[in-house]
Amino acid sequence: MIEGWTTQSSTVVHRGRRMTVRRDEVRRADGSPGTYEYTEAVDGVRVLALDGRGRVALVAEDVYVCGLRLLLCPGGGCDPAEDPAAAARRELLEEAGIRAARIEPLTAMWRMPAGARTREHLYLATGLTVGEHRREASEADMELHWVPLAEAVAMCADGRITEAGTLAAVLLTAQRTARPLPHRATDRAPASPAPGATVGEPGTEPR
Amino acid sequence: MIEGWTTQSSTVVHRGRRMTVRRDEVRRADGSPGTYEYTEAVDGVRVLALDGRGRVALVAEDVYVCGLRLLLCPGGGCDPAEDPAAAARRELLEEAGIRAARIEPLTAMWRMPAGARTREHLYLATGLTVGEHRREASEADMELHWVPLAEAVAMCADGRITEAGTLAAVLLTAQRTARPLPHRATDRAPASPAPGATVGEPGTEPR
Repeated sequence: MIEGWTTQSSTVVHRGRRMTVRRDEVRRADGSPGTYEYTEAVDGVRVLALDGRGRVALVAEDVYVCGLRLLLCPGGGCDPAEDPAAAARRELLEEAGIRAARIEPLTAMWRMPAGARTREHLYLATGLTVGEHRREASEADMELHWVPLAEAVAMCADGRITEAGTLAAVLLTAQRTARPLPHRATDRAPASPAPGATVGEPGTEPR
Repeated sequence: MIEGWTTQSSTVVHRGRRMTVRRDEVRRADGSPGTYEYTEAVDGVRVLALDGRGRVALVAEDVYVCGLRLLLCPGGGCDPAEDPAAAARRELLEEAGIRAARIEPLTAMWRMPAGARTREHLYLATGLTVGEHRREASEADMELHWVPLAEAVAMCADGRITEAGTLAAVLLTAQRTARPLPHRATDRAPASPAPGATVGEPGTEPR
C-alpha cells in the first residue's frame, strides 16, 4: 500500500476463470475518497531466447482477444505459486521446444497499472538447445521464427511487433548487447560489467 | 476477426465504470471450441515529451492498483470517440503543463493481448512549451521530473521505470534518436529518412 493511503473496502464484483474483478473504496493520502475497479490475475512471463547467431525466437500465434495473429516472445501466465523464472523455462520449452542454459531477468513491468494488478516478468535466455515443442491444443497454430536481433528491433519500430512484453524484451536486450556508447559511462546502473559479456555470443550478431 | 475463426456467442459478464468483461464462445480455425474471457476498455495513450536539451518529462504518481508510486510518461485513457493523438496532447497538457509543436506516433501496442481488448498508443512529442498543468483532484500528488534520455534508458533497465508504455516509449525513442549503426542500413523500415531528423534537437543530447 502507498504511504498515507488506506483501503476502506475491497469487493469482488466478478470472479472469472483466470481473472477476478475488484472494486475498492479508498482514502488517498490527502484524505480524498476514491473508487478503483481493476482485475487481479496471476503474473505473466515472456522470455527472449537469443541464439549463438544473434537471432531471437518469435512465435506467431492467433490471439483471439485482439483478433490478430501476433508475433510474440514465448510466454504466458505463471501457474499458481510457480516461480516466474520456472514459468519462463516451462513456456519456452512448451511453445518453442527450447531449453536454455542461462535465464536472466530483464525486468518486471506493469502492463496496465491503473486497471490490472498483475505484472509481466521478462527474461533473456541464452545457451539454447532446440528440440521438440509441447504445445497445448489451443496453441496448435503457433509457428516458430528466428529473426536477427537488429531486425526484431526494426519490427518494434515499424509495427510488426506490437505486444508490450515482446517490445520491451527485444528493446532491453538490444540495449544490453549494444556496444557501449560514450554517454553510457555516466549512467547509473546496470551495475554488472558489460552486460553483453554474460549473454554469451553478442559478437556473432551481424553489425 | 482472425481468418477461419468464428465467434459463437459473446456475453457481457460484468459491466464496470471503465471496463466491460466479456466471455466469448468461439470456434477456432481448426474447428476446436474455445472460451475466452477478457476486458474491453477505451484505448490508452502515453506520450514521451523530449525537450531541446534531450530530456524526457516523467511524472511520479501514486498508482493505487499497483500499490506503488510509479514514474510514467504523461498519459491516460482516451475519452469516448477521442482521437488518440488528441488524447496525447490533452494528457500532456493536463498532467505536465506541456504543449508540443510536434506529436508523432511511436507505435500502438497490445498490453495484455490475451486478457484485455485495448491498445496503448505511444507518441513522441517535441517542440515543447512548458506552462501550468491542469491536473484533476485525483492527480494532485503528481510531480514532474526532467530526466536525460540516456538516464531514462538506464532506468528502464534497472527497475526504476516499470510501466510498459513508458518503457516502450523511452526505448523506441532511444532507438530513433541513436546514431545509426552500420547494420541498420540493411533493416527494413522505418521508411522515413533519419527519424532523428524530425525530432528536432537530438544533437543536443549529451553523448
